[in-house]
Amino acid sequence: MAPHPDRLFPIEPEARAIARRLHAAVAGLPIVSPHGHTDPAWYALNEPFPDPAALFVTPDHYVFRMLYSHGVQLEELGIPRLDGSAVETDPRAVWRRFAGHFHLFRGTPTRYWFEQALHDVFGIGERLGPGNADRLYDAIAEKLAGPDFRPRALYQRFNIEVIATTDGPLDDLAHHAGLRRSGWSGRVLPTYRPDAVVNPERAGFADNVARFVALAGEAMTFAGYLAAHRARRAFFGSLGATATDHGHPTARTANLDPVEAETLFRRVLSGSPAPEDAELFRAQMLTEMARMSIDDKLVMQLHPGSYRNHNPLLFERFGADMGADIPTATNYVRDLKPLLDLFGNDKRLTLILFTLDETAYGRELAPLAGHYPALRLGPPWWFFDSPDGMRRFRELTTETAGFANTVGFNDDTRAYLSIPARHDMARRVDCSHLARLVAEHRLDEDEAHEIAHDLAYGLVKRAYRL
Amino acid sequence: MAPHPDRLFPIEPEARAIARRLHAAVAGLPIVSPHGHTDPAWYALNEPFPDPAALFVTPDHYVFRMLYSHGVQLEELGIPRLDGSAVETDPRAVWRRFAGHFHLFRGTPTRYWFEQALHDVFGIGERLGPGNADRLYDAIAEKLAGPDFRPRALYQRFNIEVIATTDGPLDDLAHHAGLRRSGWSGRVLPTYRPDAVVNPERAGFADNVARFVALAGEAMTFAGYLAAHRARRAFFGSLGATATDHGHPTARTANLDPVEAETLFRRVLSGSPAPEDAELFRAQMLTEMARMSIDDKLVMQLHPGSYRNHNPLLFERFGADMGADIPTATNYVRDLKPLLDLFGNDKRLTLILFTLDETAYGRELAPLAGHYPALRLGPPWWFFDSPDGMRRFRELTTETAGFANTVGFNDDTRAYLSIPARHDMARRVDCSHLARLVAEHRLDEDEAHEIAHDLAYGLVKRAYRL
Amino acid sequence: MAPHPDRLFPIEPEARAIARRLHAAVAGLPIVSPHGHTDPAWYALNEPFPDPAALFVTPDHYVFRMLYSHGVQLEELGIPRLDGSAVETDPRAVWRRFAGHFHLFRGTPTRYWFEQALHDVFGIGERLGPGNADRLYDAIAEKLAGPDFRPRALYQRFNIEVIATTDGPLDDLAHHAGLRRSGWSGRVLPTYRPDAVVNPERAGFADNVARFVALAGEAMTFAGYLAAHRARRAFFGSLGATATDHGHPTARTANLDPVEAETLFRRVLSGSPAPEDAELFRAQMLTEMARMSIDDKLVMQLHPGSYRNHNPLLFERFGADMGADIPTATNYVRDLKPLLDLFGNDKRLTLILFTLDETAYGRELAPLAGHYPALRLGPPWWFFDSPDGMRRFRELTTETAGFANTVGFNDDTRAYLSIPARHDMARRVDCSHLARLVAEHRLDEDEAHEIAHDLAYGLVKRAYRL
Repeated sequence: MAPHPDRLFPIEPEARAIARRLHAAVAGLPIVSPHGHTDPAWYALNEPFPDPAALFVTPDHYVFRMLYSHGVQLEELGIPRLDGSAVETDPRAVWRRFAGHFHLFRGTPTRYWFEQALHDVFGIGERLGPGNADRLYDAIAEKLAGPDFRPRALYQRFNIEVIATTDGPLDDLAHHAGLRRSGWSGRVLPTYRPDAVVNPERAGFADNVARFVALAGEAMTFAGYLAAHRARRAFFGSLGATATDHGHPTARTANLDPVEAETLFRRVLSGSPAPEDAELFRAQMLTEMARMSIDDKLVMQLHPGSYRNHNPLLFERFGADMGADIPTATNYVRDLKPLLDLFGNDKRLTLILFTLDETAYGRELAPLAGHYPALRLGPPWWFFDSPDGMRRFRELTTETAGFANTVGFNDDTRAYLSIPARHDMARRVDCSHLARLVAEHRLDEDEAHEIAHDLAYGLVKRAYRL
Repeated sequence: MAPHPDRLFPIEPEARAIARRLHAAVAGLPIVSPHGHTDPAWYALNEPFPDPAALFVTPDHYVFRMLYSHGVQLEELGIPRLDGSAVETDPRAVWRRFAGHFHLFRGTPTRYWFEQALHDVFGIGERLGPGNADRLYDAIAEKLAGPDFRPRALYQRFNIEVIATTDGPLDDLAHHAGLRRSGWSGRVLPTYRPDAVVNPERAGFADNVARFVALAGEAMTFAGYLAAHRARRAFFGSLGATATDHGHPTARTANLDPVEAETLFRRVLSGSPAPEDAELFRAQMLTEMARMSIDDKLVMQLHPGSYRNHNPLLFERFGADMGADIPTATNYVRDLKPLLDLFGNDKRLTLILFTLDETAYGRELAPLAGHYPALRLGPPWWFFDSPDGMRRFRELTTETAGFANTVGFNDDTRAYLSIPARHDMARRVDCSHLARLVAEHRLDEDEAHEIAHDLAYGLVKRAYRL
Repeated sequence: MAPHPDRLFPIEPEARAIARRLHAAVAGLPIVSPHGHTDPAWYALNEPFPDPAALFVTPDHYVFRMLYSHGVQLEELGIPRLDGSAVETDPRAVWRRFAGHFHLFRGTPTRYWFEQALHDVFGIGERLGPGNADRLYDAIAEKLAGPDFRPRALYQRFNIEVIATTDGPLDDLAHHAGLRRSGWSGRVLPTYRPDAVVNPERAGFADNVARFVALAGEAMTFAGYLAAHRARRAFFGSLGATATDHGHPTARTANLDPVEAETLFRRVLSGSPAPEDAELFRAQMLTEMARMSIDDKLVMQLHPGSYRNHNPLLFERFGADMGADIPTATNYVRDLKPLLDLFGNDKRLTLILFTLDETAYGRELAPLAGHYPALRLGPPWWFFDSPDGMRRFRELTTETAGFANTVGFNDDTRAYLSIPARHDMARRVDCSHLARLVAEHRLDEDEAHEIAHDLAYGLVKRAYRL
């Protein structure tokens, strides 16, 4: 039961044959991963991954949110509690619980990624279930101990050309610096994600800002704070960063005058800020970040629209990123206008927009990206990083914005072993979309080949300046 | 012109063959109908249905809204006016008007259900039109007079295992009680739908509440009112109810403290309540109902987002449910939060969410149901109970929430004769969706068989505790 | 490389064969174009089109917005600046820039329309690119000089039966009057588009209203202003107009009493109106226009939801219609209610609704049009006038509103040469949709033939009273 060579291709034989040809020409291209959440320590230290549960279950919120929705407690999956009270410590027991609920993932991309990783990385072509859970656990665990399954070996085997991590503004990037010095040929780049000093509603915001400004030796004013950003961005750039990333509740931007901005800065730092002040500060900072991007050439990514930590019980017990972040409706046309009024016509800026609100694809994002030189569309994000999600993205954006206003694929994952499967899924779905256009005589096949190459490799290199 | 055995299946031969196999294995499963609007008197009294128009036209708002949109007056269809002025009284004339406009239903599920019922129940394989209207009228009318077409005989013939009705909180459930005593083997269950005493904007609300509280011998306080609900739910449960149902303009929930709730209760009872008070009272009552569900195990259904009686002229002349209810945008992420904060993690609660806003499927409902143990997704509702509507539901929810967070099919109808056709349509569309997943190698066929069985039978039994 | 005869048809051979049969029966029907932006002077003066760039690039905001999004300046395309500063004046240079970026249009309807026009009008079956730009320019330019490529000759060749233009309320319709007198057999009708005297936020509004009222010899009161509308509508009708058109930011309607309306009229005329006053005036005027339509039988079209001139830099430099109009979310259920309360049940009114917010198709527009006798659904508009956009329109509206509540196709274009390709695209996509319904046994083929004819010809003639 190896993954079928025609998986995700159109069912019609004519379109399937075209998809096969298109995919064959891009399947072997290197992986360019410009946005993700792997740990730089993996590459720097190159230590073995601990066990199958730590690899596939515990860190993957797609996995444990589904189990949780069917009554499995996070404690049973070994997710640590903030209060330190006891949780499952036996990875094999965690793995068995995953195996016992594996049927829940039928029809989901999680299932698809997992099975392809199991097959391609570990040579396992069986379907996981209670009956083979222990045997598969042992088989994976044994391999993980060997040298071929360490992070750097997998990096080579996965044919990764470059991979970006996501890093906080206070991070010293020690592992990135270590990698630079190590002489290893892999290319692992940091990404500047300043949310911890940009979002006044984050726990510890004022302390973070104080440390951040002090680190740069600046004064505790808005001007000093902006100078600290510039310094920090330059530091990230010196270690290879080509992009910044911004995770905001909305896409709101603002264009305050310096006096207003200074006053707002003081208000959000003093005690708990009013929600409207917090929103306005984030809005202003997106505009400031765009301004800096024009100077230092860092590509800007905006990921708006997630209602974070919707479940207060889980947040209190386990902290953030526990599968309880839920998408919300997002308005780009109105919210981005202050930023676009200033910089939307500036070709030196690249602002890549993501969404958790698919209604924006056709109504807002494709029309905006099909007009403003500074805008590009990021690939389907999070819940929509899936075969049907990717198909909808192409169907809803291409007719207005074309292919060249998109930027290829992001795997956006901390699930290292799934990276090749994720990129392959995107290539298959894109080739299938192109194959249908060719079979419907809306595109010629030679053009489809050029586009397939661009979607898999060319666009991401150009958009992210890699 | 019998309905084609391959209707609604994929066109591609490979996928079609898989769909055939999947459907063959579930086509004969009993019908479990956990939510609908058939009249308990039908089963209790077992009298013949009056005539073809009363069966297919007059009670079906899908039918008469379409005719009305093309200029047919409701009076011409025999819909009674509230002022008692004259309307068409000849059912044959009503039937002829339906037949004369039958072409309007091309491409709609109404057409599909009607033709399958005509064929399967009455053995008529012709397309209705002006030319055969009288002949078909006579053929149906003749059969309706016979013993095989009485409600109980059809119940058996339709292979119904259990069917739920929808009943007001002041209903004495006399027919349900009569059915229990009758010894008939059919299983007809009431459902607690308390809108008449929960929605302050309903005509007669204050009177209804007064009768409701008095019926339970409680005091006219919020606590007494809640106790009356508990008593009434227990009464419904004693006659087999396993569920409650709530039709609200929005999904808003609230968590007021007892003093606020008591004050609000008094405000909404005195004169015409402010819209915001009415909304807040409904919001609070959803939370109260969830709390009671945890105790008494009644499954909770929420049907939000219909703008009722959008057409004031029709409402004034004919009353409610005249085809002028229009969907509106609905926010689940924000509106359900107060309830979910309290009970979302409680596995004892099952809250089944419906929507008239398909944009919520992928953006809100699937992410919520794929996380909270208390939530499940109801099937496509009302205008979306259709082949393309069902396909979109699966495509937009499965990749995030899987199949097991859904609850099978609801026919939600008072059109008794269409019930087998509706369930069969759902089975065909689900099998077609599964067949495509198998043909695209995203699912194995043995798994698809298990899921098809679950979608047709297993999930509804478990979710509704039937 | 002529356009493939099976383009846009389903890939499955069975459905494709049905689509071929359906399309063959409607491909030769005359073009009825009830809404568009061709220039009446073309038909009246019948002068040759100047050059390939002026025909295909400079006037087409679909074309230049895409080029602009990739860094081409509008000046380089010969778009005139408001300040009169220098722009490209060589049409061949403009054409070369278009050719150099032609790959950007892959997968877009622009590409599709352009290639079909190139082939069918000029006999050119090559793909445009830098290598053949000059040669194709010369070939087109040579033909444009000949008598067969003048507007009237093309009108005959395109098999146009009737075409409507869009005209301002102050327009003297001199070309339309000239056409009437000319004896030419072509039928070119004006459409009353009163935005310039209805939208208080338009530049020059107060002056326009003053001229408008004076033209009709009326007093400067709201009553006089309404009388001027009635007079102007009658004048348009006398030259063949059968419709009005209204481009509003929202779908909002209002029903003010005469005193409120008079007061509002004065407020919006004095200085720069408050946004809420401007919105309310537009809202009231939609209702007034509906009232007049009931009297004078002009069909009413509403095009809401475009955020006009989103890019202030372009607006300042080049004026309106520069590709920077962006769709926004639109609410029809709430906003149309005041108008529908008055006239929604009146069969004498036809109000055709368009949208730039596809989420309204299934949630609001199809349920509204499937109920109110006065409502019909316009075809997919602007960014959604595309193969996938048209497919979504049918899939999201038919099951609720049927086919007969839609009104056939609008080309809505000033790109004269693309008109046959646009109508043919709509016919192909509709026939493909019908073919799928037939192949899935949801419709019989004889019915599909009737519907295909209606969608291509019958519905538009009836809905627009042509």
